[in-house]
Parts: sequence; structure tokens; C-alpha cells
Amino acid sequence: MLYGAFALIRSLVCGDKELCTKQSPSKPLRMLDHWDNADGSIERGYSGNSFFFKDGRLLVNERSVTYARLLASVGINAAAINNVNVKGPATKLITDEYYAPLSELSEILDGYGIKLFLSLNYAAPMELGGLDSADPLDERVAAWWEERMRETFAALPGLGGFVVKADSEGRPGPFTYGRTHADGANMLARAVRPYGGRIIWRCFVYNCQQDWRDLKTDRARACCDNFEPLDGLFDDNVILQIKNGPVDFQVREPVSPLFGRLKKTNCMAEFQIAQEYTGQQRHVCYLIDFFKQVLDTRMYTGEEKDTVGDIVCGMTAVSNTGDDFNWTGHDLAGANLYGFGRLAWDTSLSAEQIAREWICMYYGRDAELSDTVCDILMRSWPVYEKYNAPLGIGWMCTPGYHYGPDPDGYEYSRWGTYHKATHETIGLDRTPSGTGMTEQYNEPLKSIYAHPEKCPDELKLFFHKLPYDFRLQSGKTVIQHIYDTHFEGAEEAAEFVELWKKLEGKMDGGRYERVLSRLIEQSISAAEWRDVINSYFWRKTMIPDEKGRELY
Amino acid sequence: MLYGAFALIRSLVCGDKELCTKQSPSKPLRMLDHWDNADGSIERGYSGNSFFFKDGRLLVNERSVTYARLLASVGINAAAINNVNVKGPATKLITDEYYAPLSELSEILDGYGIKLFLSLNYAAPMELGGLDSADPLDERVAAWWEERMRETFAALPGLGGFVVKADSEGRPGPFTYGRTHADGANMLARAVRPYGGRIIWRCFVYNCQQDWRDLKTDRARACCDNFEPLDGLFDDNVILQIKNGPVDFQVREPVSPLFGRLKKTNCMAEFQIAQEYTGQQRHVCYLIDFFKQVLDTRMYTGEEKDTVGDIVCGMTAVSNTGDDFNWTGHDLAGANLYGFGRLAWDTSLSAEQIAREWICMYYGRDAELSDTVCDILMRSWPVYEKYNAPLGIGWMCTPGYHYGPDPDGYEYSRWGTYHKATHETIGLDRTPSGTGMTEQYNEPLKSIYAHPEKCPDELKLFFHKLPYDFRLQSGKTVIQHIYDTHFEGAEEAAEFVELWKKLEGKMDGGRYERVLSRLIEQSISAAEWRDVINSYFWRKTMIPDEKGRELY
Repeated sequence: MLYGAFALIRSLVCGDKELCTKQSPSKPLRMLDHWDNADGSIERGYSGNSFFFKDGRLLVNERSVTYARLLASVGINAAAINNVNVKGPATKLITDEYYAPLSELSEILDGYGIKLFLSLNYAAPMELGGLDSADPLDERVAAWWEERMRETFAALPGLGGFVVKADSEGRPGPFTYGRTHADGANMLARAVRPYGGRIIWRCFVYNCQQDWRDLKTDRARACCDNFEPLDGLFDDNVILQIKNGPVDFQVREPVSPLFGRLKKTNCMAEFQIAQEYTGQQRHVCYLIDFFKQVLDTRMYTGEEKDTVGDIVCGMTAVSNTGDDFNWTGHDLAGANLYGFGRLAWDTSLSAEQIAREWICMYYGRDAELSDTVCDILMRSWPVYEKYNAPLGIGWMCTPGYHYGPDPDGYEYSRWGTYHKATHETIGLDRTPSGTGMTEQYNEPLKSIYAHPEKCPDELKLFFHKLPYDFRLQSGKTVIQHIYDTHFEGAEEAAEFVELWKKLEGKMDGGRYERVLSRLIEQSISAAEWRDVINSYFWRKTMIPDEKGRELY
Repeated sequence: MLYGAFALIRSLVCGDKELCTKQSPSKPLRMLDHWDNADGSIERGYSGNSFFFKDGRLLVNERSVTYARLLASVGINAAAINNVNVKGPATKLITDEYYAPLSELSEILDGYGIKLFLSLNYAAPMELGGLDSADPLDERVAAWWEERMRETFAALPGLGGFVVKADSEGRPGPFTYGRTHADGANMLARAVRPYGGRIIWRCFVYNCQQDWRDLKTDRARACCDNFEPLDGLFDDNVILQIKNGPVDFQVREPVSPLFGRLKKTNCMAEFQIAQEYTGQQRHVCYLIDFFKQVLDTRMYTGEEKDTVGDIVCGMTAVSNTGDDFNWTGHDLAGANLYGFGRLAWDTSLSAEQIAREWICMYYGRDAELSDTVCDILMRSWPVYEKYNAPLGIGWMCTPGYHYGPDPDGYEYSRWGTYHKATHETIGLDRTPSGTGMTEQYNEPLKSIYAHPEKCPDELKLFFHKLPYDFRLQSGKTVIQHIYDTHFEGAEEAAEFVELWKKLEGKMDGGRYERVLSRLIEQSISAAEWRDVINSYFWRKTMIPDEKGRELY
């Protein structure tokens, strides 16, 4: 009834001729992960502060209802409301300090078919329970969790379960006690099982204290290395949450190989619509086509249905919402929130179909407006990729902040994200002659990725160390590709401003001006990306641009 | 009497045979600038929090007395207690909110022969006075300052005057109103003149919004470009405060050319013993020999006495003190505080003489201990320079934070501090064929600096754009010099640890352990500098190390 009502509204607004439709969701679990902190800040939030938390308090108000309706209208049915890095007061969300407002919020969400999830602090038995350990095989620890979950689910019967980031980037976890992630996840899963709860266990586990001199360790291997050996060992109310790519939400990455390696484990795909690395909602970057490509990637598991979309039981996205008036900072970032929900509901929809729907819902049915906004949206991800780090190498952004270019910013640091550019070559050898990461894929992906000619151009430098005069499938050399794409990307970003200006008078309520000002900022930032990246490679290679354009 | 008493104590402690001495200070003004904020933080402070301010309040307590005695004992006779970036409550130091405690502090300092100075907010007439302008030629503005100074000096008769950072890095100043720095400084000077007050006007004025693509603007020129034309226009109770080098407290810079260009203006030299760019008091870096070289540099003004030391009427240093138990964080940084005072008192002392004195005063007369600590101190500045940015180019540190290596960190930013390293060359051409900054020096300095062969090796890349195979006076190529110095520097930093270990048992009260732990950190950090800088140049040039050592 709920989804039918929203589908009807959508059809009416979009002027569909046929209102009668029969649909069922592609994926049972369609989720958002909020990285909201108890103090009201949002980690990687670019649209204001949290509307869930303020100064350690949980907020339940009119916006909670609007938010629930917003999510339901795009088909989302689960939301984890607090940051996976659970610190300070947020650890106490599973205590009676928060039960009353959480119960209220849970009921509001439930009214819109949305399950409330919380992120857990794995060290809670120590921080809350006064135990001297959080060892998952310690009976006292298991007993503490059982008791805590009994109490929590009694207070919050609508709770869906928990998201856990363990042994990752300084977070506590089972590794501390020589236990596996299966030990850790199952111990929690058993505590929530009586109440129908689920444990969503993140696979973002890697060595974040790497020595940059170390050429053998490969962060891109870590997810598979850590989780493939545990396939089949997880309880059936555990879901492994796997980031779309093997590293971390770059504008371009290959699909995580782990999707092809788990045969007996529930897993879901984690995307990021919070534009941490993709322009922070100051640049337009409509990501749905990228997500769609991920979902459509065949993993060659031997099963008949073997795409990522077939394999996962659900999808989640790190949310791009905040307490800004328009929810997402950039108006056009609304298309990512809308699009993610719609794609999770129906993975067969195309990115353009979804964009057209959203434009209709948000701006109305004017054909020129729809064409123009659709053109900007559909080009925005490729354009962002063009002026960013080239050919899948990623990470040429300002460390920590992740906005704006800094080609060597992560090159000599502990994060395992290197491009190793010298005067002669750039890229990492992830084939068997290097770190062997390509071996984590099933055939034929394994051979395709491992072969410098066959590997798709857009992932060339992710998998290979190549000379700058290496010829891509496009016929261009690596260096000329870098120059060309960066000039093109900045040019197209500037063109977005001109395209948008044609829409003046076609929308009200500040919607024209808000987007215009962000597109102007984007065009300036894109020119900076162009000049910094191109100058970096020009200075390093001294290979001139074939077209003789200005390099610095 | 005061200085005599301290001299006597020093002679007795050091075991001088001759106690009878007749001395008078080399410079009348011997000052410290504290960059302490009203909230208790210290800008570029590496030894705890402020002991002058906490939560907006001025602190006057036992430590104020100890501090006054400490400064007097090394010959300091003036101290500006608040940050030159005057913001928030600090703007109100010239109002009755602060007169009572300031008066108390001023009296304490006065008892030790120290004049209290404050840093002024140039926009105070607007922020405090409610005027709509701070134009120095606006009579209302001048009248506001006159009245304010009348009140302030009535409450604080011992006040020495004010330090002003105007039109610099976002601070307000006379440029806003199309006026000159002379207009601004003189307006204030006239307001404080009736009370014997002085205005210390900082010359650290440059464009901090530079486009990195712009090859014509040269930050190193800015100081002379801005102030040389104003020579003779400043009132005689104005003192221009000139940083030792033309850029900003790097481990190596040439002397500021402005010292040689002001014939009719009072000026003083500003040094930095807060080790912002020189290891942040986690590395040992005894700077006195560097300061001494600056003071001994001849500026060829046509006068008989023409060294920087002859030209200036005073010296100030950005202080390295805080509320740490040992005042300076690193015990050995105490030698910089001591040394700066002693050098200002007697510019004829050698850095080693001063080091020996300090060691005697702090550690006692043990000969082996004295030799070892003196060896470490005297080598520490050259060693820091070796593993840092090479040949005077500077700025290869982490942006903002300024600790640890980041070779391109400032390369594409707005700060005007570029090295322009390509595959073929590195450095800026500051000769007449480039920015012409060398023309700001008098002959023969002008010709020496402008000539790539004659220019001293340690300043080669400050003044010249050179190929990596350029031969230095040392006989080494630029690239081999980079490799060699970085290996040597890290090796020597590691050797400091071993040298220090020989001193175990020779000192008490944690003095052995405190320095040991910092030397260990320094040796690790120096190895990181070595590997990052060398790898940066290896990857860029692909010129191998002649000695075949490992590059990454």
C-alpha cells in the first residue's frame, strides 16, 4: 500500500499514461547508513548538521516524520542513524539513557516501513559493562551482550539490528583477542537472534598503518584476504557489508573481488552518496550510473545469476543528508538520494530513467529543463572523473579533507593508497608479478584485469604500472589521455554553468541560484584540478601536450 | 645592578676565574614576542599552553615572577605577551577589562627591568569604538586612538608600546583605505608619543592569495617592495620589525635585503626561537649560530659599520616558552631561549661560547657532559638543514602544520612558496632574468647572489633555477648533494641518540629521559625526511645515487 501510494503519486507527477503497475523490490534490504555523531556533527557530511542528534541528545520532531516519508517515497526500508565510528555518548544508545526517544523514532520510521538500525561500539562490554575484555569467546562478554540485547529489544521491539565497524581504522574488534571476524559477528548475532535482529558487519578492514616504502602490502587485497577464508562460518543473521570497490569510494574503482568469493555468506553492497571523494556536494556528481555498472558486473561465480546485483541481498549507501533546507546541500545531490533508493528497489532501471523521474518530481515536466538537467546529471560523473586522478589510480586529493587536488598528498603516508608515479612510469602492479591482487577475481576477470592491453582503460592504472607512452585502447598514450581528459573535464564543468544559465526563470524558491552558485564553484575547482594534475605530470615527465596547451 | 647580579651568578656557576667584568648591552631593545592567544592556546607553541592567558583571563601568579626573573637573567628587557594576530578578547587588552591584571603584570616585569608590550588590533576603532572605519587619516580614528592611549597609559604607565601586524595574512591595516604603512604606523605613534610609547610595526607584508601559476609575483620581494619606498617617512618612535629572512623563518634563508635599504628608519630584527619550521621542539635545533650569521652579514650600506647587527636597534624572537614544566618542551630548546637573550646582550659572543655557558648553567660542569651536549647543540642546526628541504629552497613541510616532509605540499597553493621542481630543474630564478629579487641587495651581494657559480651553495636554489647535474662549489651535483645530505642528516640524528645514551647517570630529575625520548622521535622523523625527500627527487629525476643506497 505504502509503496503503491508513492508509485501512484510519481506516475501522476511524471504524467505516465499507464497508472496500473505491479512491482516488487529487487532487493529485500534497502538501507541508508548515516555517519552522524552524537554531538550533532556528521562525519563526511556536506549538507549541514545532523537532524538525529544535537549535543548528545536524540532529536525526534517534525523532521523525523518528513525524513521517514522521504525515505519511504524512494523505497528505502532500513536506516542506521549513527556513525559507524561509535564514540562517546553514542556508545550508550543501547542503554536506557536513549530508549525513550529511540522508541519514538523507531515507531515513526516503522510507520513508513523503515527498520531502525544502530551502529555498535564493539568495546561496549568494557566501556559500558566494566569488563576487562571484549573477547567474543569470553563467556562473560557474550553474557553481557545477551543481557544488553534482551533489554534493548524489550525497549525497542522495532529495532532491525546493528551495523559494526570492527578492527578498522583504530576501532576495537576481535583481532585484539586473536579471534576472527566470524567469532565477533556470530557472538553478537546470537545475542540478537531471539528478537529477529541482524548484524551487519563491515568488511572495510585493512592495515591503516602501512609503511609507504613497503611494496608488498596491498590495501586493495585486504578485504578478500580477511573475509574470503571465513566464507560459510557466519551465522545466517549476519550480513557482510562490502564496499563497492576494494579501496574506498573513489570516483572509479573496480568492483570488490569479495563479491565473487562468498558462496555461503550473506552480503550486501555499500555505496557512498555522501560525496566524500566526489566533490562534497559542491560539485555535481550523479553517481547512479556508476552504481549501476557495479551491480551489473558479472563476478563469474559459476552460478547462473552472477552479477553483483544478483549476489547481494541488499544495498546500503552512506547518506548525503543533513539539516540543510534541501536535505543534501547541493540540490542536484538530491538525485543521488532518490536514485539510490530507486535503484535498490528496481536494479533494472537505467540511470537516465531515474534521473528523468527525479527531475520531473523536483523541477516539473518542462521538456527543455528536463533535457538540460538530465544532460548535466548524466555527464557529471564522467566529467568529475576526467578532471580527477586518472585511469582508476585515485587518491590525488587533499589528505584528510578530500576536496581539491594534491597529487602526492597520500603518496608518502600510512594509508596504503599510492600511485608511485616516477619520471618513467605510474601505477601499481597488482598482477601476479606484483601484489597478485588480480588473482582474487574469478576468470575471465582475473585474466582481463591482469593483462595490460585487455584491462579496461578506466582501470589501467589501478591494476598496472605503465610507462607514460603506453597506448590505451582509445589509441591515446597515458600522458596524452591525462592532458586531454583534464582539459575536457574542466571545460565541461564550465559548460555546466552556461547550460544552467539557460534555465533562469524556469524554477523558483532559490533553486536556480543555489545550483548556479555551486556550479560556478565547481568550474573554478575543476580548473584547479586540471592545472594541478596536468602540471604535476608535465613537470614529472616533461612530455609536452600534443596540442600545445598551457601547462605550468 | 640587576644584570651584574646575574652575570656574577653565571660566572660563579661556570667557574670563571675572573669575576670582575664590565659590560654594556650590544642592543638597547632585547625582546620576546609571545604568540599567546586569550583563550590560552599559543600559535606555533610547542611547550604547552600559555602562562599569560587562560579562558580569556590574564594570569598573574608565581610563574609571572619566575618568568620575569628568567628573562632578566638572560638580558631580555621587553616582552609582547599576546599574539600579533589579535582576535576576540585580546582586542580588549587596551580597555579597562584588563587594566587591573595588566598593571600587576607590568609591575612584576618592571621589577626585572622588562617593558610590557601588547599586540594591537588595527581594526580596534571599529571593533571596540563602533566607528565605521580604521582609516589612519580619518580624524575620528586618530582621535579614538589618542583617547584610548591616554586611558591605557594612565592605567599602565610602565607600558613600552605596541606590536602591530597590519595588512598581513588577512589582518586589517591601512591598505584597506589606500593609505601607506607609514600613515598607519605614524598615526599610532603620535597617539603613544606623549607617554614615551613605541610602535613596533611588522614588515611581514605580502600577497598570501597568490596564484601558483603566476611566475612574476615573488613573495621574497614583498618586504622590500612594500617598505623601501617608505624609508624616512616613519616617526622616530616607530621601529620596523623585519624578519631575518625574506620569506618566513625557514631553516635557511638569505638575510632580508630590507636591512640594507633603510637609511632613515629605525629597524629591528625578528627571529623565531619557537621552532615552527625547525622541528617544533621535538627535534633539537640550536639556532644561535644561524642568528649570529645573520647579525654578522654585511649589507654594504656605505656606512663603516654595515652588518645587520650594526644596523638594527634591537632584536626580538618569537618565543618558545609555554606552561610546560621546563618552559620550552624540549630541554635543549632552553639553549635557544638562553642563547637569544645572551646574543642580543652581546652580539660578539660565539654560538659555542653561549652553548657552553648554557650547558654549565643547566647541567653543571662535567667536562664529558659539556662536550657531548655542546657537540649535539652545535651540529643540530646543520643536521636539521641536511635532512630538510635542500639548498635554501625551503617549504617542503606539511602545509599548515609545518612538521614532517611534504615536498609538493606548498607547490600548488596560494602562499607564494614554490620550488618548481621538474624532471630537469629545480629552484626559482630570482636574478634579473627572473623576478629580479637579487637587485634588492647592495653590491657586492647583488652580484654574488645573482651569479649561479658565486652564490653560496646553501642558497643556490633560493636564488637560482638549476639543472640537477649543476656542480656546486662543493664539487657535488645538486642531486648528489640532496642524496648525500639527507643520508648524512638522518645518520647524524640517529647518532645523537647514541651520544645522549652516554650521559645516562650524569643528570637527574627526568632530564636524561626527557631528551632521550625526543631524540628518538627526531631520529625516526629524520629518517622519514630522508626517505621522502630522496624518493621525491629520485622518482622525478631518475638519476641514481652514486653510492647505490636505497631509494623508494
